[in-house]
Amino acid sequence: MLQSVRLGDDGAAVAILDQTLLPGEEKYLALKKAEELREAIYMLRVRGAPAIGIFAAYALYVLARQSSADDYTAFRAEASKNAEYLCSARPTAVNLSVQLSRMMKLVDSMAAEPVPRVLEAMRAEARAIHDEDISMCKAISEHGLSLMHDGIGVMTHCNAGPIATSRYGTALGPILMGHERGMLVRAFCCETRPLLQGARLTAYELSRAGVDCTLICDNMASIVMKERKVSAVFVGCDRIAQNGDTANKIGTAGLAVLAKYYGIPFYVFGPSSTLDPDYPSGAEIEIEQRAPEEVSELFFAGRVAPKGVRCYNPSFDVTDAGLITAIITEKGIFRHPYDFRRKNE
Amino acid sequence: MLQSVRLGDDGAAVAILDQTLLPGEEKYLALKKAEELREAIYMLRVRGAPAIGIFAAYALYVLARQSSADDYTAFRAEASKNAEYLCSARPTAVNLSVQLSRMMKLVDSMAAEPVPRVLEAMRAEARAIHDEDISMCKAISEHGLSLMHDGIGVMTHCNAGPIATSRYGTALGPILMGHERGMLVRAFCCETRPLLQGARLTAYELSRAGVDCTLICDNMASIVMKERKVSAVFVGCDRIAQNGDTANKIGTAGLAVLAKYYGIPFYVFGPSSTLDPDYPSGAEIEIEQRAPEEVSELFFAGRVAPKGVRCYNPSFDVTDAGLITAIITEKGIFRHPYDFRRKNE
Repeated sequence: MLQSVRLGDDGAAVAILDQTLLPGEEKYLALKKAEELREAIYMLRVRGAPAIGIFAAYALYVLARQSSADDYTAFRAEASKNAEYLCSARPTAVNLSVQLSRMMKLVDSMAAEPVPRVLEAMRAEARAIHDEDISMCKAISEHGLSLMHDGIGVMTHCNAGPIATSRYGTALGPILMGHERGMLVRAFCCETRPLLQGARLTAYELSRAGVDCTLICDNMASIVMKERKVSAVFVGCDRIAQNGDTANKIGTAGLAVLAKYYGIPFYVFGPSSTLDPDYPSGAEIEIEQRAPEEVSELFFAGRVAPKGVRCYNPSFDVTDAGLITAIITEKGIFRHPYDFRRKNE
Repeated sequence: MLQSVRLGDDGAAVAILDQTLLPGEEKYLALKKAEELREAIYMLRVRGAPAIGIFAAYALYVLARQSSADDYTAFRAEASKNAEYLCSARPTAVNLSVQLSRMMKLVDSMAAEPVPRVLEAMRAEARAIHDEDISMCKAISEHGLSLMHDGIGVMTHCNAGPIATSRYGTALGPILMGHERGMLVRAFCCETRPLLQGARLTAYELSRAGVDCTLICDNMASIVMKERKVSAVFVGCDRIAQNGDTANKIGTAGLAVLAKYYGIPFYVFGPSSTLDPDYPSGAEIEIEQRAPEEVSELFFAGRVAPKGVRCYNPSFDVTDAGLITAIITEKGIFRHPYDFRRKNE
């Protein structure tokens, strides 16, 4: 399985799969310098909230190893400066700051220890962050597997696979795990305009793993459902409100409406950390609006629409809880009406 | 308003807007030679069933003018050869063969006439074909106008505008006519993957005409409806079965499901010739499957999906009659349950 981030060179580097070159080229980079580590986040060579968090934790450790500080105070100051520098690459990426804070909290708690002991603990902590994500993804995938059967057709949207996380991914997890265990799964990937994550990343991850995978344009989802080529829809999520309304990549809500119309169950996958206690419903979730050029000028091509034409480019949409058959986190399968304090099945 | 086809150079050439260069360049060509006239059809410089029919009729006249035949028999043989040659450019395009047959039928009926009289009649017949299309589009547009109000937001899909027909178009007709008459219309164009006719042609036609026009990716239709930015959907059609099931560009049926869910009326526009007596329902309509590269390799760009990935590329889909609020032809507005022998309102 693809691994987007790992500790390389026996701990001297962070090894990443350069996601900007996919699907054309599968190139791994071993990053050691602060500048190149930060650039990898900034340029989206590593992307996906969990993957960025894991990457940053390893990066902080790799940089700390290079420290020439011989007392704790100097070592701590250097680590703090590096954490700030890495964090500045994508200031709005929550996982980035969360995991760097966690690493610095560890360093802060070890003021009485010699530097080599702190270093050792940092490596273990970064590994723990990585392992926790693997456990989370595995648990979600296992829960998801119970919703599948041999020969099932599953539609997916955007990318919630291994390269965005640690292993397996969330929505792609059950598909990859099922395939590993010999289950026949037919995946249909919506290409996911405007940035084509479904075509560039999901179709790449699934076909590379040997999963039977078919790419479709987003507007073909209806005919694929009508022709009964799929009997489930699996998507990830960016935020889940307390009533189950779910924000995810633009196009997700439309798929949920279609699935309802065609009588196909619609499942949302994500870590329980995605459940946001601050949002009673999806109505309060603000939708990020992105650059119009993503619509009018293709990702790596020329202009496709007349110059100056107004474009609307919402990046996410909210799927009504009533359209979601179940929400799957590492804690279990929750069904409508949603009560996330306990699982319903 | 844009005119995709007309007789140019005082009858010596067919003038067309080269649609392959849109939206980047607005270039008119004056075509005279048989080879370049055929190439224009083959290379989709002129596209849209009605526009191709009009073009072919003019082309046959332009070529006949160049004839050096001095008796009817030689003249007729030459015209027939030209008709066959033009028709071979797109053998499956019904309008092409229909209008060329109509022109040849006229020639056949004038065996007793001198060649200049036949030529004159051919010019008039080509003009009649053109005029009939204009009348049809105008009638459809007038009917459609009665479904609109000042300030209305209308969603469209693919391209059923002036450049695919003669003037106004079918689904775009009421929008353009309403705008001409001072009605405020806000159009939302779905880009229409894989070939992006909505982005390249519809957004171009509407913004060029000064209509308030916003381009969206196909998967944004749901959020635009949910946010009540539109209160009607206008689409064209390729074939209408006797029960009202309607085949149109891929993505249309999905829009109809979304419109139903959000309580937004969904209107289909087309000439009455689209009503096909051979199809009792949409279940019998065969869906054209096109090249996978249209999905995996962007129209004028490089590869966006992994090499060898399977793609599914249906070109049309069928919208269930029950999802269609009304079907509008030049004969009037028909409402469900459909009885096309009389209009329902």
